Amino acid sequence: MTPRRVITLLTDFGDEDAYAGIMKGVICSIAPEASIVDISHNVPSFMIHTGAYLLWSCYSSFPPGTVHCAVVDPGVGGNRPPVAVEYKKHFFVLPDNGLISMVLADGGRHRSWIITNPDFTAKHISGTFHGRDIFAPAAAHIAAGAKPSDAGPACEVTTSETLMAPFAKHARGAAVTGSIVHIDRFGNYITSIRGKTAARFPTHSAIVSAGKCNIIGISRTYCEKSPGELVAYTGSTGLLEIAVVRGSAADTLRLPHGAPIILRGKPGK
Amino acid sequence: MTPRRVITLLTDFGDEDAYAGIMKGVICSIAPEASIVDISHNVPSFMIHTGAYLLWSCYSSFPPGTVHCAVVDPGVGGNRPPVAVEYKKHFFVLPDNGLISMVLADGGRHRSWIITNPDFTAKHISGTFHGRDIFAPAAAHIAAGAKPSDAGPACEVTTSETLMAPFAKHARGAAVTGSIVHIDRFGNYITSIRGKTAARFPTHSAIVSAGKCNIIGISRTYCEKSPGELVAYTGSTGLLEIAVVRGSAADTLRLPHGAPIILRGKPGK
Amino acid sequence: MTPRRVITLLTDFGDEDAYAGIMKGVICSIAPEASIVDISHNVPSFMIHTGAYLLWSCYSSFPPGTVHCAVVDPGVGGNRPPVAVEYKKHFFVLPDNGLISMVLADGGRHRSWIITNPDFTAKHISGTFHGRDIFAPAAAHIAAGAKPSDAGPACEVTTSETLMAPFAKHARGAAVTGSIVHIDRFGNYITSIRGKTAARFPTHSAIVSAGKCNIIGISRTYCEKSPGELVAYTGSTGLLEIAVVRGSAADTLRLPHGAPIILRGKPGK
Repeated sequence: MTPRRVITLLTDFGDEDAYAGIMKGVICSIAPEASIVDISHNVPSFMIHTGAYLLWSCYSSFPPGTVHCAVVDPGVGGNRPPVAVEYKKHFFVLPDNGLISMVLADGGRHRSWIITNPDFTAKHISGTFHGRDIFAPAAAHIAAGAKPSDAGPACEVTTSETLMAPFAKHARGAAVTGSIVHIDRFGNYITSIRGKTAARFPTHSAIVSAGKCNIIGISRTYCEKSPGELVAYTGSTGLLEIAVVRGSAADTLRLPHGAPIILRGKPGK
Repeated sequence: MTPRRVITLLTDFGDEDAYAGIMKGVICSIAPEASIVDISHNVPSFMIHTGAYLLWSCYSSFPPGTVHCAVVDPGVGGNRPPVAVEYKKHFFVLPDNGLISMVLADGGRHRSWIITNPDFTAKHISGTFHGRDIFAPAAAHIAAGAKPSDAGPACEVTTSETLMAPFAKHARGAAVTGSIVHIDRFGNYITSIRGKTAARFPTHSAIVSAGKCNIIGISRTYCEKSPGELVAYTGSTGLLEIAVVRGSAADTLRLPHGAPIILRGKPGK
Repeated sequence: MTPRRVITLLTDFGDEDAYAGIMKGVICSIAPEASIVDISHNVPSFMIHTGAYLLWSCYSSFPPGTVHCAVVDPGVGGNRPPVAVEYKKHFFVLPDNGLISMVLADGGRHRSWIITNPDFTAKHISGTFHGRDIFAPAAAHIAAGAKPSDAGPACEVTTSETLMAPFAKHARGAAVTGSIVHIDRFGNYITSIRGKTAARFPTHSAIVSAGKCNIIGISRTYCEKSPGELVAYTGSTGLLEIAVVRGSAADTLRLPHGAPIILRGKPGK
């Protein structure tokens, strides 16, 4: 028996309204055997960057064939097209507004289609709720077996609104300047510096600068420092993170999303 | 194979406690093949009006046969009866306190029963948690195939606490006075004025008055106005809404739930 | 057909990040037929006590064979072992830091194993996200049929960090001193005094002291008092609770988690 297809939902619709519930109703109606998994509905309103990070951080934990339906869509009703994307055996159904950019920055081949086929959408498409009328039904049809290539004409995911170059580049020997891409619930800062970039710096003497603070050394776990201390480490998603042990880096450092983070030190092997 | 029956949950139990989880445990025990879908557990405590709006806005997106279990129940342990309602091929299991009123205001035939049959409930019924002891088990038994008419004696859903006439009436040619029935996560105001009522007014010159502000014209999407501007439009659930493009009408206008919204203008065709 | 196994999730990972979603992806990959049920992801960060209460309050509502995966883990990466526990036909997968203590305080036989078998975990175990790398995969393997006794060596759940004696003891005839173990969404205080202990006091004249307030009598439902009044009653989980009818005891009394609650009066039959 084929395992039930999984559809993940990532939106900025919140937990106080029925918008996510309505999308689930549409999915249950089209693909009753699919398994619906909530990632989060609490992306800050219209924050495409945060949605892009969360999508990237979780999609590869799901089995091949999973359909990821992501809706953070300040331009709903405007001219950004709704797209279906196939990448590394995963499917993505989302507005073409940069939400997919961090996923695709991992490199490799992808294929994309603009969702125009009325068999993939509701009959009547409202001007304000494409989650219900386009994204949920398209995701459900793909989960139920429809080919994404039948959704509409092949396209390139546009880069006009795409978040470009989300990961910090490393010039050999020099400092690396990244930024804060996400502040999580624990007040941890997730940066755009990849752990493999950080690994080129000496573990014990590398310096991570965040605002006015310098953190010396890159740790393996929180437990290498004492409660209350700042710690830099390669986090669970493979990016350099900054935390306060059993505390909150965000409360301590008060740096906003996007603030620069600098890594320096004599490059190690 | 029959698709798995869907049970939706809408409560004011919040996301920080285990109350909703306990209801899911009861459902899993009685109807292990049912598919449990969270609508929201964040209805503001005891706000039956909000629950009634959210239930109305989402139920029809689900497939026929879905069981909607809604618990916003300030009178738990008192004399409002728990009821099962059948309406348009959907089932509702909820306290008879007005939660169903907006659904039924759409008109048409419904049938209701008071849940008294001990086969539909827990053996011991607590005085404080009927979600666990009555509503979840009754919903699960119905999803598992029990007839709602076996739940107990037929009844009329009482109107003593029912929210009467939730939709604004339109006297031909005159202004329509509605009210704010919901303020969503984006700060959008959803009003009690149906889109089809609004459609009788001239699209470009109709005036929507909200507090001290007048909005001229009824738009089709947010994108017809510029960021920061107020916009009135028929929202995804078919009701007139007021928003600020890429902003929050609630932050701009600061009107509470229930505040009057007036629509006027020369009636169009 | 065997009903699908249920895996419950209880964490402090919040609803704004993808951490819980990542755990679900891992579970879907290993046990695609399992049914994933969210209890809550909003345990206050690192609050093992709250997690222990919520886990205790809900686990027995689920069917036998359910796997309860609970992650409130301030010591992640340190030396507290990850364990699998079998108790009353339920399985628990969690850090051995006291999270299981209230469940086991109900008495009876349990068996525990330290999770060391690499077949039960991810190949690479990070230093910061054991929810993804140990707890979710172990829970999924057990739900998919693996024996918990194969997870690793048998162990005793340690008591070094265990919350000892969570329920208030009763010396016959004397007052009982308990404490607030949880403050729920409605502002109700759940105390460590069992309802069966409270039942030994006279229903109408027992005195419950909370801060500077005395509540006379133990009620059966909220409705026995008027809106705005304080009421003490045995709550849905069998513990003595204090509420304000249609209001919030927490807003009225402003007592913190752990504050003492004293029950006195002439012992009844």
